[in-house]
Amino acid sequence: MDRVGGPRGREAFWDPKAEYWNVPLMRDTEIVERPANQNTITKRYNEEAVRFIKARKDEPFFLYLAHNLPHVPLFCSDDFRSTSARGLFGDVVEEIDAGVGRILQTLEQEGIAENTFVAFTSDNGPWLPFKTHGGSAGLLREGKGCTYEGGMREPTIMRWPGTIKPGVVHELGATMDLYTTVVKLAGGHVPTDRVVDGVDLRHVLFGTGPSPRQTVFYYRGTRIFAVRKGPYKAHFITQTGYGGDKPVPHDPPLLYHLGHDPSEKFNIAQDHPDVIADITKEVEKHQRTLTPAEDQLAKRIEKK
Amino acid sequence: MDRVGGPRGREAFWDPKAEYWNVPLMRDTEIVERPANQNTITKRYNEEAVRFIKARKDEPFFLYLAHNLPHVPLFCSDDFRSTSARGLFGDVVEEIDAGVGRILQTLEQEGIAENTFVAFTSDNGPWLPFKTHGGSAGLLREGKGCTYEGGMREPTIMRWPGTIKPGVVHELGATMDLYTTVVKLAGGHVPTDRVVDGVDLRHVLFGTGPSPRQTVFYYRGTRIFAVRKGPYKAHFITQTGYGGDKPVPHDPPLLYHLGHDPSEKFNIAQDHPDVIADITKEVEKHQRTLTPAEDQLAKRIEKK
Repeated sequence: MDRVGGPRGREAFWDPKAEYWNVPLMRDTEIVERPANQNTITKRYNEEAVRFIKARKDEPFFLYLAHNLPHVPLFCSDDFRSTSARGLFGDVVEEIDAGVGRILQTLEQEGIAENTFVAFTSDNGPWLPFKTHGGSAGLLREGKGCTYEGGMREPTIMRWPGTIKPGVVHELGATMDLYTTVVKLAGGHVPTDRVVDGVDLRHVLFGTGPSPRQTVFYYRGTRIFAVRKGPYKAHFITQTGYGGDKPVPHDPPLLYHLGHDPSEKFNIAQDHPDVIADITKEVEKHQRTLTPAEDQLAKRIEKK
Repeated sequence: MDRVGGPRGREAFWDPKAEYWNVPLMRDTEIVERPANQNTITKRYNEEAVRFIKARKDEPFFLYLAHNLPHVPLFCSDDFRSTSARGLFGDVVEEIDAGVGRILQTLEQEGIAENTFVAFTSDNGPWLPFKTHGGSAGLLREGKGCTYEGGMREPTIMRWPGTIKPGVVHELGATMDLYTTVVKLAGGHVPTDRVVDGVDLRHVLFGTGPSPRQTVFYYRGTRIFAVRKGPYKAHFITQTGYGGDKPVPHDPPLLYHLGHDPSEKFNIAQDHPDVIADITKEVEKHQRTLTPAEDQLAKRIEKK
């Protein structure tokens, strides 16, 4: 996001050129290209992942492939430009998808697919001010930066041929559960000398039981804005992601049933004081497990 | 919709009882039950369809199964009540879905699946004032009664094992194309002594070419509100489905690219006067094919 040229403000994003952003491409801690040619980074990240797998196929390995795209500014290689029905955003997603396909194909070709667990997910919902370049949360409300479902709910695909049966489940999990789950899948032990918030999702993967995660706390900064428990979600504070408005506290909280009303349109707080009382208890229980830590980011900003 | 009891206004719909509506159930032109027990009509319609197929399996047949549900007021049989994650609306949809499954199973069991063409579609988008009982158009804008996509775009499933290859296509078609397509599939001839607006969708079904339908005229009453051509859609008039607001004319029309912007959020009329000119020509061409007919409904209403 280090701007060095091009039109000002959001204008530069509609027809982005790699040279507008002075971003470094790094290998370990070394800058190897600056500005990075972002048109080809998705392709190069995918190729690097394939190389890594081929080199490590005979030993246990952990690969974390975090694509920069489809975050704005959007870029794709010439092979994918103007090929999708969904414009540049669609082109970018199709290039990522093709790369995932190449990676899975590599696992097959190297004969390690049945011995490799793959998880695919995303970090947050669409960045709405960037319009068609920001993605879509479908029927979910709002987008990135806010604690409505459109900001934070993401689908996840997990794959392990021969071990995970193909299917679709509607169970709760959170990105922090990946750590606990992967450690368990690998036969390791999760540390017991500290609180680990992630839960083990193996029952969900193997169809042997419900998710141990029934509750999700939706933080914005250090404050709990909303809490989901089972199908219910209570909003104690709401604020649009990037609308420039102030946080609005709610007492009683807004209450939605995400099964009946996945778009969080119809507040049913009045009919369910028992659910609100139960969720409030969950918040108190959760807060008792917290030991406030020093804000390391604040310190770094101060230093500057 | 013939109300005879229960709470007034929309209240009766939230926890509907069959006896609130004095609707007749008819066989041909005869009333066989009044008020109809709507809790079991989905089940009974499905059973009737299965009986019909079994009786007609040795000759060509045409079956048109138009479920009353999931229109409000919502009803389902005890087997499906409170079984879905989506509340009563979900229960109703699951009962319809199970019935479709029974029908397809019947075709298999009777050995006529490979000789039977099945199309499944819907008439309009969600009736939004009925909240969770009205359905959802997903990411599409607005709902029933209006000419945004949420009001009029519906997915369609067509099935003919051994003849239609399983797959997903993103091609345009309209309900009126079913007539032309089905006549052609059955080896018949579409009349040539009148204008038939439906087009033959066989190329789409067999993967042998694009849809001959590239244009859709979105009428409200006798007026064209919007026109889609390819990925572009121009709105000459807009009005919410049931918001009580007046029609708003647009000159130039609002223009959306439904590929890049399926939610019709970002008007791009200013950048594409050529597309608007082209769509305007399509409207003129279409209107030259029309011979205004007498409004038969107006006459009936007058008579009353």
